[in-house]
Amino acid sequence: MRWARYEQGGAVHHGQVQGEQVLEIDGLPWGEHRPTGRRAALSAVRLLAPVVPPTFYAAGLNYTQHLKHYAALGGPGAKIPEKPDIGYRAVNALSGPEAPIVVPRDAGPHVHYEAELVVVIGKTARRLSHADALSCVFGYTIGNDVSERDWQKVDRTLWRAKNTDTWKPMGPWIETDVDLAKARTRVRVNGKQTIDFPTGEMLFDVPTYISAMTRYVTLHPGDVIWMGTEGVSPDLKAGDVCEIEITGIGTLRNTLQAGE
Amino acid sequence: MRWARYEQGGAVHHGQVQGEQVLEIDGLPWGEHRPTGRRAALSAVRLLAPVVPPTFYAAGLNYTQHLKHYAALGGPGAKIPEKPDIGYRAVNALSGPEAPIVVPRDAGPHVHYEAELVVVIGKTARRLSHADALSCVFGYTIGNDVSERDWQKVDRTLWRAKNTDTWKPMGPWIETDVDLAKARTRVRVNGKQTIDFPTGEMLFDVPTYISAMTRYVTLHPGDVIWMGTEGVSPDLKAGDVCEIEITGIGTLRNTLQAGE
Repeated sequence: MRWARYEQGGAVHHGQVQGEQVLEIDGLPWGEHRPTGRRAALSAVRLLAPVVPPTFYAAGLNYTQHLKHYAALGGPGAKIPEKPDIGYRAVNALSGPEAPIVVPRDAGPHVHYEAELVVVIGKTARRLSHADALSCVFGYTIGNDVSERDWQKVDRTLWRAKNTDTWKPMGPWIETDVDLAKARTRVRVNGKQTIDFPTGEMLFDVPTYISAMTRYVTLHPGDVIWMGTEGVSPDLKAGDVCEIEITGIGTLRNTLQAGE
Repeated sequence: MRWARYEQGGAVHHGQVQGEQVLEIDGLPWGEHRPTGRRAALSAVRLLAPVVPPTFYAAGLNYTQHLKHYAALGGPGAKIPEKPDIGYRAVNALSGPEAPIVVPRDAGPHVHYEAELVVVIGKTARRLSHADALSCVFGYTIGNDVSERDWQKVDRTLWRAKNTDTWKPMGPWIETDVDLAKARTRVRVNGKQTIDFPTGEMLFDVPTYISAMTRYVTLHPGDVIWMGTEGVSPDLKAGDVCEIEITGIGTLRNTLQAGE
């Protein structure tokens, strides 16, 4: 089942995606809800990030080739993970499908995509075992963890390198039925494929992260966990169109735009 | 003016604190609101963290003695700041005045308080100059950035070292009229004062942080910025009562409790 969050006529709704239509609900997809009876063509609404998380978690380095590359790069967050120590991103940077990725004019030349599986939490969770960890997961979506590599090296934190406004597009919707063992993540820049990797082949998988995290923190409905990326992005520039597809979920497309 | 968030009879309200009473409002203190006419004794309500921030910012090392000590300690976040690179804390860890600070049984012996001034944002802010930076500030409260120093050294991120559930008490309320040049931060453990420092003598002050941050990120109403701490805490243990006073704001008191 697919659940979208969208704007129509100035109001924000959640709804179930069926084919080319979205069926509006009252309530939240992961909570009590009922259909309102209103429906709209997907083409007539503006899709938003499918959830605004209370806490925005991110695994960071979690795939073999990517971590080898960035461990060599240095800077905060470049240490090779020995255990699933979760990190964070910031809600100010969140945006949706088709929204511009605005690049400030003082950004360096190495602005990169990072194509990530996003776990959406549906139930309050604390102290889940590895075997039970997926019981709190509502579904999955796609995130682009846009990063500026010079700032990532020189700043003390990842704040502007990863959390500049508009740099965390998420969407296009939440898919509740995903077989991660079969899923593949593919990125296209201006229509040309730059990478194709098995989504599930992570250093620390989703149950491993959730069981480790919930030893100390409570996960809440709407929290998201971005699971990291594979490979190395080419340098992106204003005008470039970046599409991230995860098979079985959908495609998240955004265009880079020159900012102030 | 003082604004509290509190629970009474199972419902959560915002209200204006006047003496020993709180006057309930409809709406948010930093937005449109009106008095409901209902009031309660402060002693009859449970104060909560005065705001749940969309983004939870934290300056980290921002006072001279504290940063010298922790730069020597090593671990993530221990690099001496050369510019105001903001960091983050997580909403799962937020709690309120008088709430227990629950220490998991596998925590090491070095569980410390960090007494911090908290800036509460009242208006959407982007690209503010240093001179205009305080125009987006609604008021100030107090935070205790509870930290476990062994985890802070060995983990790749600050997740459980600083964001374990209940480890971010904030309150008791938001004070809108504070003279930071005169304010002093004082900490008492079990009634005995452990430090007394000038709140405003930061490495990078509030306008410096806000003007630097809003070059890249939009601040939103309800966002908080924890401004860092001075000195070094003694090791705390279950049963210890930690009080943080910032003159002109109030006192945030919490008791440590042994957890699972």
